[in-house]
Amino acid sequence: MEKVSIGLLGFGTVGTGVVRLLTKERERLEARTGCTIQLKKVLVRNKNRPRKVLIDNRNLTTNAAEVLDDPEIDIIIELMGGIDEAYRYILRALNHKKHVITANKDLMASYGDELLMEAKKNHCDLYYEASVAGGIPILRTLTDSLAADRIQKMIGIVNGTTNYILSKMSHEGLSYEKALSSAQALGFAEADPTSDVEGLDAARKMVILSHLAYSIPVKLDDVKITGITDVTREDIIYAGKLGYTIKLVGISEVNNGAIDVRVEPTLLPDGHPLASVENENNAIYVYGTALGETMYYGPGAGEGPTAVSVMSDLLSVIRNMALGVTGNHIFLPKREMHTRKESLVESQFFVRLHIKDEPGSFSRLTDLFKEQGISLEKLYQEPITGQDAAEVSIVTHRTNKVLFEKSFEIMKKLDVVLNAKYFRVERG
Amino acid sequence: MEKVSIGLLGFGTVGTGVVRLLTKERERLEARTGCTIQLKKVLVRNKNRPRKVLIDNRNLTTNAAEVLDDPEIDIIIELMGGIDEAYRYILRALNHKKHVITANKDLMASYGDELLMEAKKNHCDLYYEASVAGGIPILRTLTDSLAADRIQKMIGIVNGTTNYILSKMSHEGLSYEKALSSAQALGFAEADPTSDVEGLDAARKMVILSHLAYSIPVKLDDVKITGITDVTREDIIYAGKLGYTIKLVGISEVNNGAIDVRVEPTLLPDGHPLASVENENNAIYVYGTALGETMYYGPGAGEGPTAVSVMSDLLSVIRNMALGVTGNHIFLPKREMHTRKESLVESQFFVRLHIKDEPGSFSRLTDLFKEQGISLEKLYQEPITGQDAAEVSIVTHRTNKVLFEKSFEIMKKLDVVLNAKYFRVERG
Repeated sequence: MEKVSIGLLGFGTVGTGVVRLLTKERERLEARTGCTIQLKKVLVRNKNRPRKVLIDNRNLTTNAAEVLDDPEIDIIIELMGGIDEAYRYILRALNHKKHVITANKDLMASYGDELLMEAKKNHCDLYYEASVAGGIPILRTLTDSLAADRIQKMIGIVNGTTNYILSKMSHEGLSYEKALSSAQALGFAEADPTSDVEGLDAARKMVILSHLAYSIPVKLDDVKITGITDVTREDIIYAGKLGYTIKLVGISEVNNGAIDVRVEPTLLPDGHPLASVENENNAIYVYGTALGETMYYGPGAGEGPTAVSVMSDLLSVIRNMALGVTGNHIFLPKREMHTRKESLVESQFFVRLHIKDEPGSFSRLTDLFKEQGISLEKLYQEPITGQDAAEVSIVTHRTNKVLFEKSFEIMKKLDVVLNAKYFRVERG
Repeated sequence: MEKVSIGLLGFGTVGTGVVRLLTKERERLEARTGCTIQLKKVLVRNKNRPRKVLIDNRNLTTNAAEVLDDPEIDIIIELMGGIDEAYRYILRALNHKKHVITANKDLMASYGDELLMEAKKNHCDLYYEASVAGGIPILRTLTDSLAADRIQKMIGIVNGTTNYILSKMSHEGLSYEKALSSAQALGFAEADPTSDVEGLDAARKMVILSHLAYSIPVKLDDVKITGITDVTREDIIYAGKLGYTIKLVGISEVNNGAIDVRVEPTLLPDGHPLASVENENNAIYVYGTALGETMYYGPGAGEGPTAVSVMSDLLSVIRNMALGVTGNHIFLPKREMHTRKESLVESQFFVRLHIKDEPGSFSRLTDLFKEQGISLEKLYQEPITGQDAAEVSIVTHRTNKVLFEKSFEIMKKLDVVLNAKYFRVERG
């Protein structure tokens, strides 16, 4: 194999990073792969837009067919984003026996199984390391390094936007709105931040991770999703007083033959390695049966980090091509597994309430929890200045989720309770 | 390929873990590799010692030849430790065209290049993921996932014993001696802890990491090593007052065509992800040119974690055998590079002194630093109860190491200085 030809779909931030690495590290990459790597065509929306890297303008095209149907092109790198068009292009590339690398989490979370099956059928590779947690090599770690172990659980901070917002709220005392504006100003959040702040983006990544870690097909619809729009500065402060940090985490867990995947704002003990993952960084914390607890930390997005992940996939594809084993490494989900019933989910919970500041009101709360069989681990109470009310924070011991929610509803209706909310608590 | 036969050298903790995983996960491993995996022979010192896993006693032998010279055995897993015998056995196995997996860092740090060359010559695989940081898949990450990037620097907490001791000293106020005894009681430290506490073990791992990250042959003799035996509880307390945590870290850095590898107790800013790596855990913090900063965290030793790493190597070897590409993935150091001159090393430094509590003594210190052109970032002073003396802690700005050391020697001789010591400080 003397030469490998690449077609690139999309030339935004990550595309620029890939072209930059291909140019800058050409000598090392060619020494390593033993072949010439040629970037033959790049599909762009606008050929005349100024570019941050040097590229021959004749290699740019606005016609997808020039990339997808060129028989000389061996590998397609899809970095255009979006679902429908990307899906059609990748399918067409696979049908033309081209190997595919994508960073498209939306696509892989929704149509990953179909595309992987199509790739396998065509003896093509389909790699997507960059689709989860940017520069962190988590997919390759799950499939290669932890292959002999049985993964039980993963907790991921897999959305940089929300982690940035919560970090700013925690450390600089910003309100949610101010922190969001700051994230938007720095390019960490989109003009329409819905899919990030509502947790959908994180849910997609947890679907991809679960698929690989457990060989189980998980549907996005099976993920219980709560975003961060209801997290306030006060929630963060009172969680802090009890020794916890609030993070938007994805939790994916297999237990007694059932799987549970959820994304929600969660309290982590301050000493937990995930609690110190700040700003736009990502991390995935993995519980293996034999391995124990490991964590993989790094930048969750950005030109350089994401391009390094795309390039690691490119090197894998070239190696597989040289060995004649493309398509052999594709993991298709092997086991079906039902979603854990909510009535079987257990957790600790953090409850924040305002109660009337009158004799006996606090014991009304504790009596209720006692009646319901929920025991309390931590309590904090302080008066609210200028009001006849008190701020109460409670962390329960581990309890059944359905039982907890029932008790919470009863509690909200107590006449001494002015308002109340709760979050899940993760153990250390 | 229907069957793969394995010979195991050594049946201690990690060997037990490997046999346990081979037994427990047999079905999954065989489904994944498409072949039967047979553990044919295990070299032991004593055939009659009770074992923690079920094994047919007829597979145990005290005669190395029965393992190394058996033509049916394809893969040797070396878990016996030590250097000389292990070296001879591995060489013999490679000459018999057997693939080798080892967890032996002492051996790989000293004779890695020779053994790798021998393996390549024989078209054999030689993998050693478990030799660095137990269960953390750092070697595979460096060679596969970060392959397209250029690594500039690594900081590793790669010795669990010393990290455990320093954690206990930090959080439970134990003296060095008490923390060491506790580590020994829990099996985290050997009866003779020298190679751990003096930093040699960490240095060996940094040699292996540097080799892979930069393709540079680093000799153990080139590593500047300082252990933790001089770190006191007071050093930890006063570093803490200035916002730092003391860890034994290995630092390996390439800069301007020169390499610098050192192991020494170092102050890390409290917010640094490495600062919260506690107890016997390990972590490697990697600075990539395009990737930025990533960290890999997990258990640095133990039966399960180390066995998972050995098994990941086993799966790689079996895959390579099936593809007929054994020996192709071996990295031999490609570039020679000289060691950075000490006169070019720059760093921040933490100085702890006791000075006479008399007028002008503090300004004698600051005048000296000013004369020497060293500026100070942080200062802390408090009286020492019951003595006419003060405790002073200083963190300098970044400065030349040789200049700093010269100034430190002058400072120690000032008549107001009762005693003084210093440590290196790592930036956040």
